[in-house]
Amino acid sequence: MVNLSTSSAATNSQLTRVEINVDCGEAFGLWEGGPDEELMPMIDAANIACGGHAGDPVIMRRTVALAKKHGIKVGAHPGFPDKAGFGRRVLAMSAEQAYAEMLFQVGALKAFLDEADVPLNHIKPHGMWYIMMQNNDDVNDAAMRAISHFKVPVYGLPGTLHEFGAKKYGIPFIPEAFVDVNYSAEGVLLGVPGSRKMEPEEIYSATKSLGLKGMVPAVNHVAVDVGVRDKPFTLCLHSDFKTCRENVTAARKAVDEVNKELYSDA
Amino acid sequence: MVNLSTSSAATNSQLTRVEINVDCGEAFGLWEGGPDEELMPMIDAANIACGGHAGDPVIMRRTVALAKKHGIKVGAHPGFPDKAGFGRRVLAMSAEQAYAEMLFQVGALKAFLDEADVPLNHIKPHGMWYIMMQNNDDVNDAAMRAISHFKVPVYGLPGTLHEFGAKKYGIPFIPEAFVDVNYSAEGVLLGVPGSRKMEPEEIYSATKSLGLKGMVPAVNHVAVDVGVRDKPFTLCLHSDFKTCRENVTAARKAVDEVNKELYSDA
Amino acid sequence: MVNLSTSSAATNSQLTRVEINVDCGEAFGLWEGGPDEELMPMIDAANIACGGHAGDPVIMRRTVALAKKHGIKVGAHPGFPDKAGFGRRVLAMSAEQAYAEMLFQVGALKAFLDEADVPLNHIKPHGMWYIMMQNNDDVNDAAMRAISHFKVPVYGLPGTLHEFGAKKYGIPFIPEAFVDVNYSAEGVLLGVPGSRKMEPEEIYSATKSLGLKGMVPAVNHVAVDVGVRDKPFTLCLHSDFKTCRENVTAARKAVDEVNKELYSDA
Amino acid sequence: MVNLSTSSAATNSQLTRVEINVDCGEAFGLWEGGPDEELMPMIDAANIACGGHAGDPVIMRRTVALAKKHGIKVGAHPGFPDKAGFGRRVLAMSAEQAYAEMLFQVGALKAFLDEADVPLNHIKPHGMWYIMMQNNDDVNDAAMRAISHFKVPVYGLPGTLHEFGAKKYGIPFIPEAFVDVNYSAEGVLLGVPGSRKMEPEEIYSATKSLGLKGMVPAVNHVAVDVGVRDKPFTLCLHSDFKTCRENVTAARKAVDEVNKELYSDA
Repeated sequence: MVNLSTSSAATNSQLTRVEINVDCGEAFGLWEGGPDEELMPMIDAANIACGGHAGDPVIMRRTVALAKKHGIKVGAHPGFPDKAGFGRRVLAMSAEQAYAEMLFQVGALKAFLDEADVPLNHIKPHGMWYIMMQNNDDVNDAAMRAISHFKVPVYGLPGTLHEFGAKKYGIPFIPEAFVDVNYSAEGVLLGVPGSRKMEPEEIYSATKSLGLKGMVPAVNHVAVDVGVRDKPFTLCLHSDFKTCRENVTAARKAVDEVNKELYSDA
Repeated sequence: MVNLSTSSAATNSQLTRVEINVDCGEAFGLWEGGPDEELMPMIDAANIACGGHAGDPVIMRRTVALAKKHGIKVGAHPGFPDKAGFGRRVLAMSAEQAYAEMLFQVGALKAFLDEADVPLNHIKPHGMWYIMMQNNDDVNDAAMRAISHFKVPVYGLPGTLHEFGAKKYGIPFIPEAFVDVNYSAEGVLLGVPGSRKMEPEEIYSATKSLGLKGMVPAVNHVAVDVGVRDKPFTLCLHSDFKTCRENVTAARKAVDEVNKELYSDA
Repeated sequence: MVNLSTSSAATNSQLTRVEINVDCGEAFGLWEGGPDEELMPMIDAANIACGGHAGDPVIMRRTVALAKKHGIKVGAHPGFPDKAGFGRRVLAMSAEQAYAEMLFQVGALKAFLDEADVPLNHIKPHGMWYIMMQNNDDVNDAAMRAISHFKVPVYGLPGTLHEFGAKKYGIPFIPEAFVDVNYSAEGVLLGVPGSRKMEPEEIYSATKSLGLKGMVPAVNHVAVDVGVRDKPFTLCLHSDFKTCRENVTAARKAVDEVNKELYSDA
Repeated sequence: MVNLSTSSAATNSQLTRVEINVDCGEAFGLWEGGPDEELMPMIDAANIACGGHAGDPVIMRRTVALAKKHGIKVGAHPGFPDKAGFGRRVLAMSAEQAYAEMLFQVGALKAFLDEADVPLNHIKPHGMWYIMMQNNDDVNDAAMRAISHFKVPVYGLPGTLHEFGAKKYGIPFIPEAFVDVNYSAEGVLLGVPGSRKMEPEEIYSATKSLGLKGMVPAVNHVAVDVGVRDKPFTLCLHSDFKTCRENVTAARKAVDEVNKELYSDA
């Protein structure tokens, strides 16, 4: 993990309590994504796939409508343009390609948001794009430059290049943490392929630990500080895991308990 | 040709003189499109491909920059999502798919226009989408409903469903005519595959005839009225023909002469 | 339905009893297709998607291995190159494009069959390609010319251009019938979008009726003759219906009963 | 460069004289590739793109017919499935994906070769796939395992993992060298983006140097030994450079002179 000298506590997270976000609209054509309709009542924000790693125009439009119906926040979830790899493979776009790809995907989603009269709440890159941005300065810089164009917050990992890049380009930064995939013992987010299976009970306890102490069990089970101690953050949960309903239910319970204990005045 | 009872002379074309538009940005990855940089100094408006039949994020962004540099108007040029067929094959999208596809492509282009601070001037569907819209009510209706969302004029064929659909959805309509592809003897636009080769001299004379009399030689060489008599219109020329430079040069000369004769006070 | 003067009874179906075939390998990347592993023990032949409407290299290879493990026949299931539409939309390929596309897709599957030492048993086009071939002579002819190259039987609808084209190009023809989608009252196969929901009990009784009398209830519930009276045929069932397990179970029971009654000496 | 302990002189190159190979069929839909028809009369072997980085079924079929007409050898030229990046970007396929992708692409080409009754002469991966195979053991191993299935030689860089992997899987190895892109000072092939522009005269002299001494000027102009001293090899030239006609003409002249001097008895 890149340790930035900036105090992450100084970051204005723009959140007043812990939230839950889930990647939604990750279907394609007749192929189904996660159970968005079942999850949305339990979450605060949906990150909607933009046709890169998943999604297509019809699915994007339907997912925006679904999020509006449930009254949750909507963010853009741009991913590498690689549906065959679900945006989870390294794809070495040039800085120009990455910058333009980000504008393209978020711009496309905005057409559906405008139509539905729903504001763009945030941007959160997907999968390997998000992972590479935490460690590769060129990849992070091109993405953040593009994100800055939309004047909304970015979700990212505190204490990594994510936070540094957001600050550089004046983008409001909302710290994010994960409990259904793992961090390395050094606190580097590993992504889906490198993680172990997390049971709903583990997700409940990890969320409580995150919310109350900012600590989460790493892939080797040792607790690591992932930079969200003593401040609200957004918790990401996956919708493409078989147990996603149980996972989100468990996390929701934990988040509600944390919010009641720490942020009830908010 | 569908003969609408509305008088096309009543249409507010929003043009004060004859213009030339060219489809631009029709490259893909390393594959080249037309010679946009050579054509732009001779034209009034560029229709920029939106990643459907041609174009990708980098090309869209570069083409917007090029149009801005040349000070010409920029329109969106959405096409069927079929690069292998360059949007010139029938693809039977459902109304929902077509509507969402239009929002997606134009929305994506708008991100690049916003970044460059260039306004979206108009929308003009490409190839088989444009062709089908002139004759198929369902196809036309879905496209026009989507186009109406963007509050800009549409380019279309006067006296066809194009004009009817624009009126239905309150979209400003700019009549368009063609001289480098042909109309049938009944005045139905045929598209690239069904047309004969037009030499630059024919393009010059056809443009003069269009501008001064509203008549153009059909595929069978007999002059047909294509609905632009006594009013300004926009003339489309293709950038993917081998002779496109000569074609545009010839048309520009003719258009300038027509404008001088008919619209010099404009 | 095109009524050919050839007696379909004269067709050598190359089958000695009624069989069941199912489209398999219709996943893409991380998106799941039907429950192939559960269905294969109940069927005689798998039609494996070839990367056109569904499938990708990894899925094709895994599906070939699965079919080999279950000891069932393997056919190629080429579809329109349109994953977004799952090959169920009209895509107007030229004859040259359609011919080459068929060679491409079947050739790609053959690499995996060769690797696994499994013979190519048959070819059966998918979705809208199959539907268009029953009625459009140009579409049928280009496909059949390409299919003839592989020297294996084609599955098709008896009494339609399918059978006529197979005969023209010397391709062994195996008559196919459907019970989980419907025919029109005139006996024209309608495909998934135009059909009503068939319950497993209806599938059982329709299969019995087909096997014993060659008649099946049309979309309007009136029995139609679909050309498989008094001869073995292959019965197609879909793997992408929610009730596919129950459907195949019901059809298997009916087919086994028909085979016992009519083809037990085979 | 990985220095293998095997003597590359011991490799049976299966060539009796120096040859020229060119990547062909690198068009897509209506977008044009190189001037194959002009280059084929000057070369010995065409590597035909297989629909991964370039090419589509129609183009593959036409290019096979063109090569047959010119009587040259035909190899498969599989590339990363990334047309937007022309196969020149890192795409981190898993070993399973890479293996299956190779079978898929070469299998598809074989359908066109079978139809035209032209044998598959060799396989040569394209662009970043070829580059990564010279240095990454996992990437190389998956590709070579797949290539071994087709029982034809592979073109590759002598003294790298290419040669090692070919030997491991019993694949005949034909050493390849480049003169229109550069090697690093250490003899590592750099690919198109990292190379300097080579003028036809430089290509002529570099080819002579390669053929007679096995040395070629590196990107820093210092001569490096690229492993083809004292043995026939195949020289690759690009068809997507503006000066490709002049480049191939210059290389042909040099190769003919080398062959006359060294291999006239062959």
